[in-house]
Amino acid sequence: MPATIDFYFDFSSSYSYVALPGIAKIADDHDVMVNWKPFLLGVIFNALNHAPPAGDSIKMRYSHRDLERCAEAAGLPPFVFPSPFPFNGIVASRAFWHLDESDSEKAVEWARAVFHASFAEGRDCSSPEVLADMATSLGHDAKQLLEATAEDTVKARLKEITGEAMDRGVFGAPTFFVGDEMFWGGDRLVHLERYLSNA
Amino acid sequence: MPATIDFYFDFSSSYSYVALPGIAKIADDHDVMVNWKPFLLGVIFNALNHAPPAGDSIKMRYSHRDLERCAEAAGLPPFVFPSPFPFNGIVASRAFWHLDESDSEKAVEWARAVFHASFAEGRDCSSPEVLADMATSLGHDAKQLLEATAEDTVKARLKEITGEAMDRGVFGAPTFFVGDEMFWGGDRLVHLERYLSNA
Repeated sequence: MPATIDFYFDFSSSYSYVALPGIAKIADDHDVMVNWKPFLLGVIFNALNHAPPAGDSIKMRYSHRDLERCAEAAGLPPFVFPSPFPFNGIVASRAFWHLDESDSEKAVEWARAVFHASFAEGRDCSSPEVLADMATSLGHDAKQLLEATAEDTVKARLKEITGEAMDRGVFGAPTFFVGDEMFWGGDRLVHLERYLSNA
Repeated sequence: MPATIDFYFDFSSSYSYVALPGIAKIADDHDVMVNWKPFLLGVIFNALNHAPPAGDSIKMRYSHRDLERCAEAAGLPPFVFPSPFPFNGIVASRAFWHLDESDSEKAVEWARAVFHASFAEGRDCSSPEVLADMATSLGHDAKQLLEATAEDTVKARLKEITGEAMDRGVFGAPTFFVGDEMFWGGDRLVHLERYLSNA
């Protein structure tokens, strides 16, 4: 049985976005499956009493330059921060889990589109109007998709995944698991790859 | 003129230690000089109101596993945390700057020894006895070296470097500069290398 990688991310996580090409490459090179698992990092930050990076801090300014370099190294378009940032990814996440109920590939296509809109185009993916526009572009019924994000089963699924992430020790994004082995950060994909090679 | 890399580190920074082989490789491959610059990260944390990672946090437990993997990937001995950790690197840093006054290579040799003693052997490099023992092993006059760490010029030099780091925007360790381009973290040596290659 091929290994699988559990990939926990928050749509507002710029470092999850710049990790996408690296994840795709590892999945290809090692013939592993990737389980995309959007969750709400803010819920975990609150539970752990971790402060998110402050918008005006010296670290945040460095981080912008760092993300530009990460995007360039990964072959992604020039990096941009959407406004607002961080943004609330709850509706985008619920839409993902709704799509995932019937077609996991459509859900992943949605996730890629949300990330690209946010960090390559600077669009506000907390906005229902922006999400509706993207849904239409991807051939979905926008009204139906947004309505589905209010369904109890979809809300419960996002809560469940966020709880699962917390139970497994996730405290940031992106976080990857191969079995019980946890890797935090796109820069740790090199460790994940070593782990797969030695397994 | 070959490029130089300014390498700011704190002796208590485990992530500076695991970056050493990577720095050496880049220096070799690109024929660049590395300026080793120990400073006091705690002073900057205080000034910026940044909290150091808490010893018992979930992040710290992950960090231990991460450092084991970093050390292994870098070809270093099995990683160990010294006790206490973090430790106060002020005496080890002053000894570095004293040695640097007359022989920068001896200073770098000292830095490597302090890092190895701390994170491969788990010795307490905040202890004058441990430092004296190491100084003797390296062929220094231990008593003279420790006495020199109380000299005003040596104290002033460490303060100056810590202030210089803060002025340049350093908020963590290791931090590297090529000219004004700043790279934070050993995992960003891949970006530094791209930068050198494209320069």
